Amino acid sequence: MEKRYYPYEDFLADARALTQKIDWKFDAIVAIARGGLSLAQLLGEYYNIREVYSINTIGYDDKEKLDSVKVFNVPDLKDAKNVLLVDDIVDSGDTVLEVLRVLQQDYPAVNFKIASLFYKKSARIAPDWYVQEADRWIGFFWTEDLK
Amino acid sequence: MEKRYYPYEDFLADARALTQKIDWKFDAIVAIARGGLSLAQLLGEYYNIREVYSINTIGYDDKEKLDSVKVFNVPDLKDAKNVLLVDDIVDSGDTVLEVLRVLQQDYPAVNFKIASLFYKKSARIAPDWYVQEADRWIGFFWTEDLK
Repeated sequence: MEKRYYPYEDFLADARALTQKIDWKFDAIVAIARGGLSLAQLLGEYYNIREVYSINTIGYDDKEKLDSVKVFNVPDLKDAKNVLLVDDIVDSGDTVLEVLRVLQQDYPAVNFKIASLFYKKSARIAPDWYVQEADRWIGFFWTEDLK
Repeated sequence: MEKRYYPYEDFLADARALTQKIDWKFDAIVAIARGGLSLAQLLGEYYNIREVYSINTIGYDDKEKLDSVKVFNVPDLKDAKNVLLVDDIVDSGDTVLEVLRVLQQDYPAVNFKIASLFYKKSARIAPDWYVQEADRWIGFFWTEDLK
């Protein structure tokens, strides 16, 4: 698949576009690590939310998809009410679906919504807010720039 | 105090410099949120470490220093051996000292080392690796660019 380099400048423009789309008040941000970490930092600063957490998954092995997604390092959300879950891309949707399942199981009283930069139409779940449709493999700056 | 804008390009150069300084093998990265999140993402990608976690603190109120630092959302490090703790700046050192105290108490068998982009010489603790000395208030891109 053709690869598209995604520089910081595009990320910044898309992060700004995301803030213009998100019409919801939330009190915590959970980044799906590693993909959502930089976005979570910028959104945390923008919305002045200190409760920026991460959650971890294993599900890809390089560019091969594993059959299952393992979720670990679940944050403590006992004081949260509305939580924005952020990731770089909702691709197959398997990762975010499994993260949601684990979080909703652990925190049934918390509302979760999903924001991502990219979304692939074939995914099993659509984010509540996204900026771009993904049609190529994306070389995010955080992966490419230190190489 | 004079403010220095710190753009993504400088961050990238400093992150690269940090990788050239760090002479230690580690198996997990803990970002002090929010400041260390983007750096942790780039380092996680560079070192191919998926175990990128966050830990949260409250200690500043705007630019005023509170007397104490509260650490919360401590990650699960039971499978870790050597953990790199990353932050944007070691300023007074209070935050990183308290984070270290809590982590070492919870995980006495784990080795922790500290990497930061900036370090203020007057801090109560020096990072194991850092890139620049801080002499001004730094306007990090993740704080400034979405304004």
